[in-house]
Amino acid sequence: MSNELLKHILFPSDLKKLDLTELPKVSEELRQFIIDIVSSNPGHFGASLGVVELTVALHYVFNTPYDRIVWDVGHQAYGHKILTGRRNVFNTNRKYKGISGFPKITESEYDAFGVGHSSTSISAALGMAKAAGFNKEDDRQIVAVIGDGSMTAGLAFEGLNNAGIEKTNLLVILNDNNMAIDPNVGALKEYLLDITTSKTYNRLKDDVWNLLGHLNKLGHKYRKLAQQIDNAVKTFLLKQSNLFESLNFRYFGPVDGHDVVYMTKILQDLKDIKGPKLLHVVTQKGKGFKQAELDQTAWHAPGKFDKKTGEIFKVKSDQPLPPKYQDVFGHTILELAKQNEKIVGITPAMPTGSSLSVMMKEMPERTFDVGIAEQHAVTFSAGLAIEGMLPFCNIYSSFMQRAYDQVIHDVAIQNLNVVFCLDRGGLVGEDGATHHGAYDLAYMRSIPNITVSAPMNEEELRNLMYTSQLPNKGPFSIRYPRGRGVMPKWETSMKEIPVGKGRVIRKGSDIAILSVGHVGNYVVEASKELAKSHIDIAHYDMRFVKPIDEKILHEVGKNFKAVITIEDGTIVGGFGSAVLEFFSEHDYLIKIKRLGIPDQFVDHGTPHELHHECGFDVEGIIKTVKSMVQPNILSNAG
Amino acid sequence: MSNELLKHILFPSDLKKLDLTELPKVSEELRQFIIDIVSSNPGHFGASLGVVELTVALHYVFNTPYDRIVWDVGHQAYGHKILTGRRNVFNTNRKYKGISGFPKITESEYDAFGVGHSSTSISAALGMAKAAGFNKEDDRQIVAVIGDGSMTAGLAFEGLNNAGIEKTNLLVILNDNNMAIDPNVGALKEYLLDITTSKTYNRLKDDVWNLLGHLNKLGHKYRKLAQQIDNAVKTFLLKQSNLFESLNFRYFGPVDGHDVVYMTKILQDLKDIKGPKLLHVVTQKGKGFKQAELDQTAWHAPGKFDKKTGEIFKVKSDQPLPPKYQDVFGHTILELAKQNEKIVGITPAMPTGSSLSVMMKEMPERTFDVGIAEQHAVTFSAGLAIEGMLPFCNIYSSFMQRAYDQVIHDVAIQNLNVVFCLDRGGLVGEDGATHHGAYDLAYMRSIPNITVSAPMNEEELRNLMYTSQLPNKGPFSIRYPRGRGVMPKWETSMKEIPVGKGRVIRKGSDIAILSVGHVGNYVVEASKELAKSHIDIAHYDMRFVKPIDEKILHEVGKNFKAVITIEDGTIVGGFGSAVLEFFSEHDYLIKIKRLGIPDQFVDHGTPHELHHECGFDVEGIIKTVKSMVQPNILSNAG
Repeated sequence: MSNELLKHILFPSDLKKLDLTELPKVSEELRQFIIDIVSSNPGHFGASLGVVELTVALHYVFNTPYDRIVWDVGHQAYGHKILTGRRNVFNTNRKYKGISGFPKITESEYDAFGVGHSSTSISAALGMAKAAGFNKEDDRQIVAVIGDGSMTAGLAFEGLNNAGIEKTNLLVILNDNNMAIDPNVGALKEYLLDITTSKTYNRLKDDVWNLLGHLNKLGHKYRKLAQQIDNAVKTFLLKQSNLFESLNFRYFGPVDGHDVVYMTKILQDLKDIKGPKLLHVVTQKGKGFKQAELDQTAWHAPGKFDKKTGEIFKVKSDQPLPPKYQDVFGHTILELAKQNEKIVGITPAMPTGSSLSVMMKEMPERTFDVGIAEQHAVTFSAGLAIEGMLPFCNIYSSFMQRAYDQVIHDVAIQNLNVVFCLDRGGLVGEDGATHHGAYDLAYMRSIPNITVSAPMNEEELRNLMYTSQLPNKGPFSIRYPRGRGVMPKWETSMKEIPVGKGRVIRKGSDIAILSVGHVGNYVVEASKELAKSHIDIAHYDMRFVKPIDEKILHEVGKNFKAVITIEDGTIVGGFGSAVLEFFSEHDYLIKIKRLGIPDQFVDHGTPHELHHECGFDVEGIIKTVKSMVQPNILSNAG
Repeated sequence: MSNELLKHILFPSDLKKLDLTELPKVSEELRQFIIDIVSSNPGHFGASLGVVELTVALHYVFNTPYDRIVWDVGHQAYGHKILTGRRNVFNTNRKYKGISGFPKITESEYDAFGVGHSSTSISAALGMAKAAGFNKEDDRQIVAVIGDGSMTAGLAFEGLNNAGIEKTNLLVILNDNNMAIDPNVGALKEYLLDITTSKTYNRLKDDVWNLLGHLNKLGHKYRKLAQQIDNAVKTFLLKQSNLFESLNFRYFGPVDGHDVVYMTKILQDLKDIKGPKLLHVVTQKGKGFKQAELDQTAWHAPGKFDKKTGEIFKVKSDQPLPPKYQDVFGHTILELAKQNEKIVGITPAMPTGSSLSVMMKEMPERTFDVGIAEQHAVTFSAGLAIEGMLPFCNIYSSFMQRAYDQVIHDVAIQNLNVVFCLDRGGLVGEDGATHHGAYDLAYMRSIPNITVSAPMNEEELRNLMYTSQLPNKGPFSIRYPRGRGVMPKWETSMKEIPVGKGRVIRKGSDIAILSVGHVGNYVVEASKELAKSHIDIAHYDMRFVKPIDEKILHEVGKNFKAVITIEDGTIVGGFGSAVLEFFSEHDYLIKIKRLGIPDQFVDHGTPHELHHECGFDVEGIIKTVKSMVQPNILSNAG
């Protein structure tokens, strides 16, 4: 595939110079460009391929950046980035100091609204549309592009409900590919399938239309009448039997989202239609790359692959690699569920990412993918728990922010036995600021009744999961990072960990380091290094942020003048602050340094790059220890 | 009104002994009982009057507590409480140590799920229905009763979307009174109005049916055909053109919710119909009490009133009372909006409660009631802000828990100029655990970029609001409590407060007290009392939790050996912890005592009773100070 049209396009103004008939070709070039780059520089894949034609049509028709396009979630916006000034830096996508994998307002004026989490686009676009009115820029077009998966989240519904009564020219484009990351679920999906396949209309036809056949027998006049009735009811059905029309949106579609010429015509027409409108576009995730079309979940974000053969490269290693925490979760919940019939698994649209899919495969009736609906996932879990079931509700840390009220109001106040497995706790890496699980330790530990824990390795994850499902443990949060642990032989036999009990990893005398979670492994390494410099670290893996191990803290308080806390989470109100609170309450006046995510939003990069930037990788720990064991500082802490 | 039927009813089993024909009478007695009690013991009013017949019908038909009734929000559940064992203690409703104003699982086995916040019922009921299946109790009936206002929240939609594909016999009763606390808003409301008034059906009739008139002319055979078509399309419309049917719910209604006999018959029929069902019941909020029918917002929770004349008693006072913080907010935002044309006001369904109604009345086009939709309120504000508007988004503290992700993801990461006015921060009193604004200082201050503030009085609220709307302040949170301030003459001229600057209220030498927010007034009183005992308090009104006033903290760190922090919020990660963090970071090793809401859920009572229970009323402060200024403690802190 040549690049002859795309190479002249830096900005949408260049795209607009093309003839309408050239749009299919430029779409194909754009698609190939994405395949080329993403095959060697991993990122999201299927979603962007699916909206290539839509992206070209939008920038061809609309006057960006004056007109605003809000991409929901934003992992489908690669084509948009390439067409809006970032083609030449697109190879830095998701790399440290490179461009973001999501639209970001500080990166380009074409990125109208920063995204990452799903379902914000309608609300944001409505705000922008209202603002256009206040700013006397009524000619501005505002477009929200949202997937059918994102449409299941409550926020999207709240946006529709409000937009339906506001007099703005908002255009919502429903990009319907019948997928979230995993296949989309829920009644809305069924409904969209129904209208795209015209089942409703056909059903009415069966019910009624054949009655009209009688009219035809009566000659020309009544044949015409039959046709009139047919047309009127058909029009009416499109208008009135439609979910979106119920919410005051004018509904258009469904249309083929891969016909770029047709799309430009429709978008052009829609520009002139006032009021809230919804265009239902049917696309195929992974379109144009065969393997991605066939296995859309695997190709959501495949990592590096061979763009010719479609082979996804696996990480090769001489030694057995430790498993991903996700897989440990997946296999362990299945193992536990086999022993404890009360256990059920809940995920808001992340069965594959969380590896709940392992249990789902063997026990479909005891696992629930509730759609992109974190709030519902938690309250639904509360409903199960109140009747004696034991839900493991697996939600990514940064998405759990969506269900904070439900954790407090529906689970913690009622002290229900719900286990929250907070996946992707800590810095997630390439997805960047929107996805880092930076706040959960802080926001969870403020809630009464709840146990807040984080395993240091695979064995602890298993033991914490085992412990959490024992009788009457109340709300129990277990957070672990994205990616691999440290134990290639992870299939340990499980045992109970007393709630609130940490463990001594290393005895020492110079300084005490209290860690929680996987970062404890950095401390182990740092301790070994420091021992070479004759600095003797005491290291405690606290395991629980709440309740915190008071015995260990008293021991540390009595025996050490200097303490370092370390967590892969914000230092504002997090685990380190819990330690401060304890020492303050018990009158230990000790020098304490808290390592963790500082009070700022951290951009994307590899986890290691980010840990280094935040100063809690092995090097950062060593540096901090050395700065604290200098005698002058220790003497101040007396 | 006599009490002859109701007096024999302690539990639903007693109700079931009545003949169907006696239900209207017992309903009237129940209504009168509620009026009698609530007139002298204030609580929610209109909502419970509206569902009297529905409540009687539900307990007459269903086998509670084996069958589960989940009341959404729960302030309409007074009738339910009276019929389920709590008639004789209903006069303790919402009182300290009395029964809760909301269903609560620890209070009664008839309270199937604890509520308070809106829109949880469908999700919870679905969880309970699934659990019934797992527990081999498939005959259990699960009913969620949800208002049309609550239906606008995203959580309710998420619940419907999931319930529509699960094979459970869930019954959702949509209690449609066209009201939240204020009149309901949004496209869904328009839709419900449309179907209750049969507009859709009539419109189709106009469009099509008159064509069918031609058929009648053709004699008997075709008249019959016309009727067949009419019936088929009518049935079809009820089934297919319905929003809820789109989501796989079988839709029934609308029916008159005040016809108790008819309601029992319908509910009886619905028991035998499998799968997810929605019964649309039309009721009138305040039904049976004329004034409450006429002004439903004022009578949502009217306070004490004369049950004969319908006069709502006002608090009488010899001296001018300080205003409510809410009213200061309302008048001040209007004042500011007149000067700054970029200001807009946003409320999720609380215009009256927040007093945004003051601005709404004068500037309807610049205020937005977006429905019960906190998530949308925040993201919508972000959309407005990104285009240069200055939204004041007013949300109750405990409801802001619903929009935590949106504050982080849509506002803070993008560093947008959105002002969050967090009403009802701190212990709210009679509404109890679900409504206390206990966590906002903690969960807000963990977020980068955001300013977190709390005024000590009316003047500071005005100055903070003024400051927050000056250019480029970024995300700015101002939290204040429910109820009255301290300044009868509150209409001060506004001036900027430098962000992050506190103030000295009182110089002193024995101990330093750092307060944030209204509770600073308790410190003022306590300081005066303590001066009588020759204890000399230094008192600082910090005003900002973030950024915190480092100059004051350095001054305190250098000059005091003992510090008390006080806040009307959780002490786990809150303002006091921010002070601990600062002192730790700057090597001040000082004895610090944090006063605030302890690490437990606090029940209902008057604010004063609860402040006393938590130990941060005037008495609690005095006690704490005295315990700290004892020489033996001070010497330990050296």
